[in-house]
Amino acid sequence: MKGIVVLGSTGSIGTSTLDVVASFPGAFRVVALGAGRNLDRVEEQARRFEPELVAVADPEGAAELARRLGSRCRVVHGPDGLVEAALHPGADLAVCALVGAAGLRSTWAAVDAGRDVALANKESLVVGGAFLTARARQTGAAILPVDSEHNALHQCLRGEDTSEVRRLWLTGSGGPFRSRPVATLAAVTPAEALRHPTWSMGPKITVDSATLMNKGLEVIEAHWLFGLPAEKIRVVIHPKSVVHSMVEFVDGSFKAQLGVTDMRHPIQYALTWPERWAAPLPPFDPVAAGPLEFEPPDPDRFPCLGLAYRALERGGAAPAVLNAANEVAVEAFLAGRLGFTDVPVVVRSALDRHESDPAGSLEEVMAADARARRSAALSVSSRAPS
Amino acid sequence: MKGIVVLGSTGSIGTSTLDVVASFPGAFRVVALGAGRNLDRVEEQARRFEPELVAVADPEGAAELARRLGSRCRVVHGPDGLVEAALHPGADLAVCALVGAAGLRSTWAAVDAGRDVALANKESLVVGGAFLTARARQTGAAILPVDSEHNALHQCLRGEDTSEVRRLWLTGSGGPFRSRPVATLAAVTPAEALRHPTWSMGPKITVDSATLMNKGLEVIEAHWLFGLPAEKIRVVIHPKSVVHSMVEFVDGSFKAQLGVTDMRHPIQYALTWPERWAAPLPPFDPVAAGPLEFEPPDPDRFPCLGLAYRALERGGAAPAVLNAANEVAVEAFLAGRLGFTDVPVVVRSALDRHESDPAGSLEEVMAADARARRSAALSVSSRAPS
Repeated sequence: MKGIVVLGSTGSIGTSTLDVVASFPGAFRVVALGAGRNLDRVEEQARRFEPELVAVADPEGAAELARRLGSRCRVVHGPDGLVEAALHPGADLAVCALVGAAGLRSTWAAVDAGRDVALANKESLVVGGAFLTARARQTGAAILPVDSEHNALHQCLRGEDTSEVRRLWLTGSGGPFRSRPVATLAAVTPAEALRHPTWSMGPKITVDSATLMNKGLEVIEAHWLFGLPAEKIRVVIHPKSVVHSMVEFVDGSFKAQLGVTDMRHPIQYALTWPERWAAPLPPFDPVAAGPLEFEPPDPDRFPCLGLAYRALERGGAAPAVLNAANEVAVEAFLAGRLGFTDVPVVVRSALDRHESDPAGSLEEVMAADARARRSAALSVSSRAPS
Repeated sequence: MKGIVVLGSTGSIGTSTLDVVASFPGAFRVVALGAGRNLDRVEEQARRFEPELVAVADPEGAAELARRLGSRCRVVHGPDGLVEAALHPGADLAVCALVGAAGLRSTWAAVDAGRDVALANKESLVVGGAFLTARARQTGAAILPVDSEHNALHQCLRGEDTSEVRRLWLTGSGGPFRSRPVATLAAVTPAEALRHPTWSMGPKITVDSATLMNKGLEVIEAHWLFGLPAEKIRVVIHPKSVVHSMVEFVDGSFKAQLGVTDMRHPIQYALTWPERWAAPLPPFDPVAAGPLEFEPPDPDRFPCLGLAYRALERGGAAPAVLNAANEVAVEAFLAGRLGFTDVPVVVRSALDRHESDPAGSLEEVMAADARARRSAALSVSSRAPS
C-alpha cells in the first residue's frame, strides 16, 4: 500500500484525489490530511479515510474537530500543522493541493525531506521554483505535476531527453471570454468569470483561467519543471481542452497527450506513477471529441499572459511578485472590489515596483511576495469600483 | 559515422532516405545499396554516395551497371545480391524499403545477423512477423518502424510499458475514396486510385491506401511490432493525416504523435534513434493544421480492412495469404486487368482456400504465399474485365 498525505483535501483537487484513492481499495493508505476551515468536509474525510493526523487552519477549528473526532486521530493547526502533515511518517507521496503561495512551505518541507510530491499548487513553483527544483535534485524527491497541462508534458517526455525538445506547447481553453468583445470585458462579473467552459475547478484558478494568468503561471511552472527557457514555451488556445498539451522535438515531431477533462486522470497518473493503472473512468473517444482546433492567444484580450512572460524573462523575484499581486487582485475581483480588466493593471503596477527586489534566498523571495501584496492592496483600494 | 545499407534505394522511401542522409553531411556512410531495374537512378546514387556494394535485380543490369561504374564499387544481383547488401560489413543499420513480400529475405538476413533494421517493408512483418520478431529477440536486432503510423506508435511508447496499453489507434486518411458514392467504386481507374490526398508514396501502397488494405496490413504489422492482439488495435479515419497514430493507455490517457506528412520525418527518426537530431525540414504548425477530425471506417466501403482483421485473428499462414493475394490483385488492377472492387473479392477467395495452410516454419508460410499467388492469379483471370 502506498501511503499518501493530501494537503488541501477539501478543495477541488483534494476531493478528486480522495475519489481516486477510494476507487482503488487496498492500494493507498491516507496517513494525513491538511485542510483549511471546511470542518464538516474534513471530518467526513477523516471518518472515511482514517488518517493518523489532520491539520486545519486555526486553533479553534482544531479544537472543534478534535472534539468531533475524539480519539480517531490527532488534530493540529496552522502552517506548522500543514508542515507536520507533509512530513508525517509512513507516506510515500505528498499531494500538495493548497491554493496560492501559502502552499509553498509545506511543499518545501516535503521536497526538503526527499518525499515525492504530486504538485497541484503551481504557485509553489512560480514563487520558489529555483529553490524547490534545486533542493529536489539534491534530495531525490520527484515533483510530479498534477496540472493537466504539465501532467500531459510529463507523459509526452517519458523516455525522451529534454535537450531534444524544441518547444513545449501549453494548451488553454481560452476561458469563458475567448470570443467576447474586448470592449465589454471591463464589465465582467465574478459569476461570469467563474463559468469555465471545459474544466470544473476552484474559484481562484477559474478566474485565472478567464484572464489567462493561469496559463502564464503555467508557463513559469513549466520552466521550472522541465528546465526550458521562456522562448521554448508557447501557449496555444485550444477551446475543447482535449489536447492537454504538446511537446515539439528538434526533429520536428510533436507528441500530444489527449483525454477527457477530468482532473481525476492527471491525479491518478501522479498517484500511480511510474505505473499506469486501469482507471474506472469513462473512456475518451476521439471520434466523439469532434474537430480539434488551435489558435494563437490574443495579447490585447489577455494582457496577463504577457506579464507572466515578462516576469519569467526577468527572473529573480519577478514571478513571485506577479503571483502575489495576482492573488490579491483576484481576491478583490471575487469580492466585488476590483474590475475584471483592472486585474492586469494591478499586477503590472506591482511588477513595475518590485520585479527587481532581491531574490538570493527563499526568504528574500517571500519578502518580495509580501511587499508585492501590500503594494497590490494599495492599488486595489485606489481603484475600487464606486 | 553511422554505416547504413539502403535496400530499395530507388523507390520512394529509398530516395527519401538518401535525402535525409545527404542533409547530415559526415553523419552517415552508405556502405551498400539494393535496387531493382532503375539503373540510371542507382548509378547516380552510387556516384553520389559511393557505397562499396550495389545489388540490382538481374545479371544483365548488374553487368551494365558494373560497366558504367567501373572500379567504383562491386555490383551483385538477384535475391542473393540483396542479402549480400543487407549483410555488408561496416553497417550499423539496414533500411529495408523493398516493396512487397520480396523484401522478406533480406530483412530476415539482417535481423538474423543481429543488425538493426529500419523497416519500411511492412510485408516482411505481415508474412513473417512471428519468425522475424522471435529471431530479433534472440539476436538483439532492433526493428525500427518507418511507416509513419508505426513510427508514431514507437514514439508514443517510448518510456512506456506495452502491458499498460489499452489500445493502439492507427489513423488513416481514408484515401481518395472516403466520400465517393460506394456504388461508383467499381468504376475506379488506376489513375484515380493513385491520387492520394495527403501522402506521396509508391504505386502499390497508394492503391492499398485507396482500398484501406494498407491500414489492414498495418494492423497486422502493429500486432507484431508491439505484441498486442487484434482487439487492441483500432483503425480510425483522420482525413488530414496530421495525427500519425495514437496510443490509449489503461488509465484512459491518450498519447498522439503529430507532424507534417513528409516521410523524411519517420525515416530520420529511425536513422538517428535513440537520438533525435534537429531536422532541416519545414516545422509543423498546429494552428495552421486546421481542425482535426476522426471518424470510424466504413466496413462496407472498405472490405479489405475486415479481411485483414480476419487474417490476423486466424493467424498462421492467413496474413501471408492475404498479402500475397492482394499483391497479385493490385498488380492486376494497375495493369487494367481487374476492377477496383474485385480486389477484395480476389483476396477473400484466396483466404477461403488457403488461410489454414500449414505455417509451422517460414518455409511453410512462403509456400502458402506461393499457393495464394497462383490461386489469386486464377481468380483474376476468371474475372478479367472484358
